[in-house]
Amino acid sequence: MNQYRILIQAPDRSGLVYKAAKIFYENNLNIISNNEFVDNEQNQFFMRTVVAGDIDAKRLNEMLAAEMPEETSITIKLTRKKNIVLMATKEAHVLGDILIRYAEGQLDANIVGILSNYNTLRPLCSHFEIPYYHISADNITREEHEAKVLSTLAMFDSIDYIVLAKYMRILTPEFTKQYPNKMINIHHSFLPAFIGANPYKQAHQRGVKIIGATAHFVNENLDEGPIIEQDVIHVDHAYEWQDMQQAGRDVEKVVLARALKLALEDRIFVNGNKTVIF
Amino acid sequence: MNQYRILIQAPDRSGLVYKAAKIFYENNLNIISNNEFVDNEQNQFFMRTVVAGDIDAKRLNEMLAAEMPEETSITIKLTRKKNIVLMATKEAHVLGDILIRYAEGQLDANIVGILSNYNTLRPLCSHFEIPYYHISADNITREEHEAKVLSTLAMFDSIDYIVLAKYMRILTPEFTKQYPNKMINIHHSFLPAFIGANPYKQAHQRGVKIIGATAHFVNENLDEGPIIEQDVIHVDHAYEWQDMQQAGRDVEKVVLARALKLALEDRIFVNGNKTVIF
Amino acid sequence: MNQYRILIQAPDRSGLVYKAAKIFYENNLNIISNNEFVDNEQNQFFMRTVVAGDIDAKRLNEMLAAEMPEETSITIKLTRKKNIVLMATKEAHVLGDILIRYAEGQLDANIVGILSNYNTLRPLCSHFEIPYYHISADNITREEHEAKVLSTLAMFDSIDYIVLAKYMRILTPEFTKQYPNKMINIHHSFLPAFIGANPYKQAHQRGVKIIGATAHFVNENLDEGPIIEQDVIHVDHAYEWQDMQQAGRDVEKVVLARALKLALEDRIFVNGNKTVIF
Amino acid sequence: MNQYRILIQAPDRSGLVYKAAKIFYENNLNIISNNEFVDNEQNQFFMRTVVAGDIDAKRLNEMLAAEMPEETSITIKLTRKKNIVLMATKEAHVLGDILIRYAEGQLDANIVGILSNYNTLRPLCSHFEIPYYHISADNITREEHEAKVLSTLAMFDSIDYIVLAKYMRILTPEFTKQYPNKMINIHHSFLPAFIGANPYKQAHQRGVKIIGATAHFVNENLDEGPIIEQDVIHVDHAYEWQDMQQAGRDVEKVVLARALKLALEDRIFVNGNKTVIF
Repeated sequence: MNQYRILIQAPDRSGLVYKAAKIFYENNLNIISNNEFVDNEQNQFFMRTVVAGDIDAKRLNEMLAAEMPEETSITIKLTRKKNIVLMATKEAHVLGDILIRYAEGQLDANIVGILSNYNTLRPLCSHFEIPYYHISADNITREEHEAKVLSTLAMFDSIDYIVLAKYMRILTPEFTKQYPNKMINIHHSFLPAFIGANPYKQAHQRGVKIIGATAHFVNENLDEGPIIEQDVIHVDHAYEWQDMQQAGRDVEKVVLARALKLALEDRIFVNGNKTVIF
Repeated sequence: MNQYRILIQAPDRSGLVYKAAKIFYENNLNIISNNEFVDNEQNQFFMRTVVAGDIDAKRLNEMLAAEMPEETSITIKLTRKKNIVLMATKEAHVLGDILIRYAEGQLDANIVGILSNYNTLRPLCSHFEIPYYHISADNITREEHEAKVLSTLAMFDSIDYIVLAKYMRILTPEFTKQYPNKMINIHHSFLPAFIGANPYKQAHQRGVKIIGATAHFVNENLDEGPIIEQDVIHVDHAYEWQDMQQAGRDVEKVVLARALKLALEDRIFVNGNKTVIF
Repeated sequence: MNQYRILIQAPDRSGLVYKAAKIFYENNLNIISNNEFVDNEQNQFFMRTVVAGDIDAKRLNEMLAAEMPEETSITIKLTRKKNIVLMATKEAHVLGDILIRYAEGQLDANIVGILSNYNTLRPLCSHFEIPYYHISADNITREEHEAKVLSTLAMFDSIDYIVLAKYMRILTPEFTKQYPNKMINIHHSFLPAFIGANPYKQAHQRGVKIIGATAHFVNENLDEGPIIEQDVIHVDHAYEWQDMQQAGRDVEKVVLARALKLALEDRIFVNGNKTVIF
Repeated sequence: MNQYRILIQAPDRSGLVYKAAKIFYENNLNIISNNEFVDNEQNQFFMRTVVAGDIDAKRLNEMLAAEMPEETSITIKLTRKKNIVLMATKEAHVLGDILIRYAEGQLDANIVGILSNYNTLRPLCSHFEIPYYHISADNITREEHEAKVLSTLAMFDSIDYIVLAKYMRILTPEFTKQYPNKMINIHHSFLPAFIGANPYKQAHQRGVKIIGATAHFVNENLDEGPIIEQDVIHVDHAYEWQDMQQAGRDVEKVVLARALKLALEDRIFVNGNKTVIF
């Protein structure tokens, strides 16, 4: 029997749960888990249901759509492995962490490619038998570089998520709008503190006692997309900013890994500039 | 319009969500929030729904029961303030924390009485205009003392929860079985580590780097009831056991407060020796 | 035998530890604990030593000063209880938490007075036998109000620390410069995120997954003084900003309590706009 | 100029700091950092000093020993890279995490070899150019297997630490006594809770809300050596024990990495069955 994850986002109305549950019941779909949330401020209804059964996903979508309000977004996903692309620059800790999970079979995804503006990480990546694309940004404009990246990405059949595993280049809105809510970034600070360059230097200068990391979807505004996951660690006066950076790496990689897991399990709704996570 | 919290625990069957949602829909009950979980190991279905509307709770219970499997437990609670009794010994931090929340209107409960085997806390409690019952355990047997406590508890009209706010006496099974899943205790360790007396001394002796606290329902076996909430803090070699104890107080009071909030909001199911918390 | 806490902050030079240790040794002062740190960026040396023995503090200060570089700051404190004043507005949770610790003998300080711009907290405070000063801000200018507060503070013999236990009024630089590094504030966010008014609303709007609290010394710039202590808790999409606020109270009170404990134990050096904490 | 880390553990006496500081001063050794702690219960003095200068370590040791009480343990280490051996079984997450740090230059050590009772991890390790020794335990006794492991270890010039990166075999006291306070293990629970086999199953069965990991030195008694570092993460009722295991991997690898860093920086004293960590 197949398992389907059904994500419904709709203007809130009375009876939505009943109508969905009725369709599941009449089609012999067994509910394995179910979560709902209503954002009263936005009058938005969110429901994620995992069902087991045998049904045509397109037909199920139609039946649900017929009962739901206009403007409802319905997504039905078979629980298959997703295709992801990793983008990185020179730092190995986040990328390496994903690769180790992948090698150990702990990542429910196919890594179809790794893109980097440097060749630094190629030796590390070569062990994992994943195509590595070095797209240098030297001597070309930002737009030219992004065009090359986009045409490389276009080679892949279908990309579910692009993971910016410490990709240290700013992306233009022209680029990011190609992949709305599909690009996950790890920012090396507890957003919205220390937006921008070298957050660890900023944190050190401010004398904070905690540093953090934030995984978020990328939108047009740098560091301002919907937050998926955050965490922190304690530091003290003896930390130079480089020590903060080194300690911060452990938070970065764990926070990104958690966010990626949520995405791969279809647990994230984007609700304006926020997320609803089941 | 009233709000009701409906808690259903049942042997898992197909269609339970549909059947419940249908009844809510046909009775014009609007679903405000809804959570479900299936424990596959135990084949148990758990569902907590908050609805708004106007209905006789008894009638609703009957309608639900008619559609659910035998052996289903259904609880319907109006979102009214619950009655709680606090039991303490000499330490003020947990009890005082609850009283401050109460005074500030942050505790959704009526504290109908405070019982202690000492008079130590009476001056503190006197400020909050809550009856204080000193039931000394001196020169009487454990059974005699418990009989006195039980007869004092019997004076109250209706007790939703008894909160052991550092009540440092062991209760007999004869006592605890009077209030199944209604007594919440705070244990000053991360259970199941350091069961029994003076966990801080045990923790110090073992040289742990973390100490914790556990809020749990009390059953016949000391420190072994279903766990509701736990948390920890970091310590180091410079902590004497008394320092651990002092630092631990902050975890104890916060963990108990969180557990009590969950109970007052009817978010806890007891599932054998575990809890399901929505 | 007396215990002294000796805090030395000096331009870094070779031999400082040796020179101090020599004086302690020659005066039969037994070192109970000792911590040092050098801020290389600022070329500052920090040393906190707890010694037991019998000596005139003034004489000891002179001996140390004679061996240390010019511009050295030396503070010698007998481990006596400090005098603190609490300032609050209407919220009870932080103030109440301090009072419960006080009542239980867990606070190593004398609370010599409580000041508030409202009378709201008087009933709560009355139980703890601490003078309560209601200094209304109604119908007077900020300067007039601060003058009244200052003249009330002037009544006390000696104030070691002023604790702003959710004192919700902005203080002018004229006020704050009267008590440099002596006023401890709890800010209801993880600074520097969400500076200013209603951080919980800001946090909710940004969709963060973590909220925090920051205890810091107050200087002329609102929310920008040296940070003493910070901590966070996790939240999710189901939190309204009011839920964040309620959950945040537990972090606020615990973080302020930790910061106050550090201050009462003379563990904090102010190093420019940062702190060094042993 | 060289940097030396000087670790002194001695029966507590008056004047120890002075005597050590005098020697450092007279030999033109500049104190970069210094920490002391006295365990009053055991009457033990611990001091770790980092100095910069130019001196013969053996001569410095003699000078210090001449001034210290009998039974003092003095260790002087140049801040050079240490040699470590990794031992693993089949799981890649802890081992892989160390290897990524190593590849990125974040590990201040030479990994001289990797030993495993399986060949499973050889492909992963092959990328990092570290000798991999497969020492099968099939069809031989525990003693025979350990003899083979010991003889492989004996091949290395000098081993500072052996890191058990999820080495899932029990070691006999005969083995562990060869490397006292030199073997670091990661145990997949918050010790002393859930000693022994499959702690995640035990944790799931007990219904805990937190799971943890513990890095400790290995001594003769399984899971009872001095604890170096611990941490935890929150879980809930929806976690099967396998989910706990998967989530726990992130704690395991981070906790072991922190413990290893402390060891490589010579920050750990063993104090009976506990650690003192600066």
